[in-house]
Amino acid sequence: MRVDVAFSPAGLASQDVAGRPAFVIDVLRATTTICAALHHGARSVVPCATPEDAVRLAQTVGAEVVLAGEKHCLPIPGFHLGNSPREMTPERVKGRIVALATTNGTRALLAVATAAHVYPVSVANFTLAARRAHELLQGGGDLLVVCAGRENAFGLDDAYVAGRLLREALGGRTGRSGLNDAAIACLQLVRTYRERWDRPLRLSRAGRELQKVGLADDIADAARLDAYPVLPYLHDRRLTVPSAA
Amino acid sequence: MRVDVAFSPAGLASQDVAGRPAFVIDVLRATTTICAALHHGARSVVPCATPEDAVRLAQTVGAEVVLAGEKHCLPIPGFHLGNSPREMTPERVKGRIVALATTNGTRALLAVATAAHVYPVSVANFTLAARRAHELLQGGGDLLVVCAGRENAFGLDDAYVAGRLLREALGGRTGRSGLNDAAIACLQLVRTYRERWDRPLRLSRAGRELQKVGLADDIADAARLDAYPVLPYLHDRRLTVPSAA
Repeated sequence: MRVDVAFSPAGLASQDVAGRPAFVIDVLRATTTICAALHHGARSVVPCATPEDAVRLAQTVGAEVVLAGEKHCLPIPGFHLGNSPREMTPERVKGRIVALATTNGTRALLAVATAAHVYPVSVANFTLAARRAHELLQGGGDLLVVCAGRENAFGLDDAYVAGRLLREALGGRTGRSGLNDAAIACLQLVRTYRERWDRPLRLSRAGRELQKVGLADDIADAARLDAYPVLPYLHDRRLTVPSAA
Repeated sequence: MRVDVAFSPAGLASQDVAGRPAFVIDVLRATTTICAALHHGARSVVPCATPEDAVRLAQTVGAEVVLAGEKHCLPIPGFHLGNSPREMTPERVKGRIVALATTNGTRALLAVATAAHVYPVSVANFTLAARRAHELLQGGGDLLVVCAGRENAFGLDDAYVAGRLLREALGGRTGRSGLNDAAIACLQLVRTYRERWDRPLRLSRAGRELQKVGLADDIADAARLDAYPVLPYLHDRRLTVPSAA
């Protein structure tokens, strides 16, 4: 068994990623927003490294593209939507392609594009993601969990969700062999914050910054267990859910 | 007050570092080894990014240079010493310049070369380092703690020592405002492992790899509180202790 957690995509080497199943977490807010969009009927979500990439996609594909994203937590001028899960209503996204450009989350997804499978994880799709992680550990025993973090640094919110994911994936297993140091530390964070999804989310810098710009409701939304129960996966540079693939 | 912990030098931006006081931790083993060498009378320790850099230094400066370091925990062929604190005996290092090339620690020191002050931290010089960190927080209130980590990833050993350092630096202060997410997580690790320096050191991947190659004694040495009580600082690309400067 091999379980590695990376607290940010910075420093991930290609051999850490290639061919492994990867779970990507940016709970505040990109992976929550992705689940919200797909749960509400978006055809796909395309993670874009920059707002310019998103605009280029819209120019190529046309009117069915919805431009969404953020820079420093705030909406991007000229974009249809921000990076809030609450904006991904059926009215806005159903049947559309969401081109999503965010500071950390979409870049983390792109950083693991060479993985065997890529699944975005949030509280909103936690049970499905945890079940998949558990199956993979049972089957082959290899797992990479990549936290988006904040500008290549550790984020408490993502690390806590990673710990919860690992705890479920490991089932009753208590040994620490095969776990990297970040995986061990994540599991300790779960012991600290216990079952309270919202506490580490609010305490994290990402959470504090959202509160500062009046987006505290996004934290509450991101802390709702299984609110957007889909398990998207990345293929051909876009995220879809199996039924919509 | 601003207290930032970086779990590895990867992703540190120049504005995170420049002009701030920085404490660098690679407890297994570079910063412990640096303290051992200077405590035992080395004139200075020069952190080198690569073994080749160390050799070049020796070629330039001459016979007073001792070549020391490791690659994948093991001594470098042709070097006088490895990266073990136990090798830094007075017989080997007294009056000499130690050119030290290690995988993670010396690179972390070089990554913060633009900081206002750079102090290596280990268990072996913990009390002196913690006192200095506390003074700095009292005075101006800005602190950067950089863990060397392992190949740009999180290391449990360094993170635990960072948590101990912060706990002392903060004194009785319990609020979390001004702390980045990694600083908060470090302090939680201290709650988990409590006062046992050796436990997180042995459990970390760095510790497990040392045990695998028969260097478990280095872990025991690195876990001895204040065994090498010096507070080296970096200036002109070398580490010295004030009395030997």
